[in-house]
Amino acid sequence: MELFDSHIHSEGRSVEDLEKMSEHGIKHAVSCAFYPIKPLFAETLMDLFRKLIEYESGRGRKAGMNIYAAIGIHPRCIPREWDKVLKFMEEVEGYVAFGEIGLEEANKEEVEVLKDQLKLAKRLDVPCVIHTPRKNKAIVADKIFEILERLEFPEELCLIDHANAEVAEKALRKGYYVGLTVQPGKLSVEEAVEIVYEFGDEYFVANSDSGFSESDFLAVFNLWKELKNEKVLLKNAKRFFRV
Amino acid sequence: MELFDSHIHSEGRSVEDLEKMSEHGIKHAVSCAFYPIKPLFAETLMDLFRKLIEYESGRGRKAGMNIYAAIGIHPRCIPREWDKVLKFMEEVEGYVAFGEIGLEEANKEEVEVLKDQLKLAKRLDVPCVIHTPRKNKAIVADKIFEILERLEFPEELCLIDHANAEVAEKALRKGYYVGLTVQPGKLSVEEAVEIVYEFGDEYFVANSDSGFSESDFLAVFNLWKELKNEKVLLKNAKRFFRV
Repeated sequence: MELFDSHIHSEGRSVEDLEKMSEHGIKHAVSCAFYPIKPLFAETLMDLFRKLIEYESGRGRKAGMNIYAAIGIHPRCIPREWDKVLKFMEEVEGYVAFGEIGLEEANKEEVEVLKDQLKLAKRLDVPCVIHTPRKNKAIVADKIFEILERLEFPEELCLIDHANAEVAEKALRKGYYVGLTVQPGKLSVEEAVEIVYEFGDEYFVANSDSGFSESDFLAVFNLWKELKNEKVLLKNAKRFFRV
Repeated sequence: MELFDSHIHSEGRSVEDLEKMSEHGIKHAVSCAFYPIKPLFAETLMDLFRKLIEYESGRGRKAGMNIYAAIGIHPRCIPREWDKVLKFMEEVEGYVAFGEIGLEEANKEEVEVLKDQLKLAKRLDVPCVIHTPRKNKAIVADKIFEILERLEFPEELCLIDHANAEVAEKALRKGYYVGLTVQPGKLSVEEAVEIVYEFGDEYFVANSDSGFSESDFLAVFNLWKELKNEKVLLKNAKRFFRV
């Protein structure tokens, strides 16, 4: 059995935690870019991307798992000169996706940063992990859908993450991938199972979003125990991230 | 019983690990600045210092422990425009020490960066956690002593870290504090105990140096079980770091 956690922040996890993930079959994980305080400088994110690509992948290897890097500007981590980050994203190599990008409060700056990242992703043919917030999830997700459609963003490059049933249904109808985040405050294992039973298993991926705070870094394994679905727990993510 | 780990990299530890430290009596720790790849940009270190001061202290509180920030340029993390970092160190507030600073290969650039940080520390009256390397420890430590003496650096602001018996003896003779790092590849609990028995307990502090790699984050607790010395495990560090 091999499992894929489509969204973690490996930086916030000790190498021993990563080893436990690997021991529980979680052999693949995408480590998404995030900075736990609002960075003052664009350069901080550039070095962060290098760290994810060069160093976190190595910690993964030590722990017996593949850690793939996702790079991008999280809506809560927009530095002043964020255009510099975009330029760096165009040049750097070694990542599998842009992420997590998306909207938190959906203010003007966030929308602008998201749009520019999506345009770049479309041009470079890069899969995108798109964050939806806890607060006003449905409204903000609608805003994201609107942006994606205006940009004629390729459906197969789009993963709407942290979905609940309502957001999942809409996203699937539009042809996007959907991320189910099993975490206290997001989905329980039971809720995730129910959503897959209701909407089918072709476009779901699963993740723990584990990182800097307390979190169940074995969430994907716990979901596997109940769901036993290889598409949701491995194959769909491999297809989406092309690994 | 309250213990003090004088040198960790809390960023590399999950909040659950920090909770375990707290449960084992480790209620105080200094989290030292380090970037696990060589940063390209000075700005990365500036945001890192902010992260240590603002965010890691908060993770500590959640875990029931005091995490104090040490800021500075580690010899393996010197960015191109390191003078910008020095300027930032002069302005930022909320840290207890400069660290870890020191020498790794003792090349010209490392020496220059160390000297400038020590000059600033002397001027601002800031305690310094000074790293000594695994390789050529005695020779590089001698180089550090020479720099400290030429600068007439105040003894009470100087902690020579990762000491072995030889380095400890010299450092104590010069009136410096000495850090005993209990970690695979550095000191065993038995070796640390022996060193304290040999040289007295007035100027030693203890640490795990735990962080991004595999490490025994309860090392200070394990040392306590054998040594039962409140000066080495708490009081000396409180005095040195003034907390």
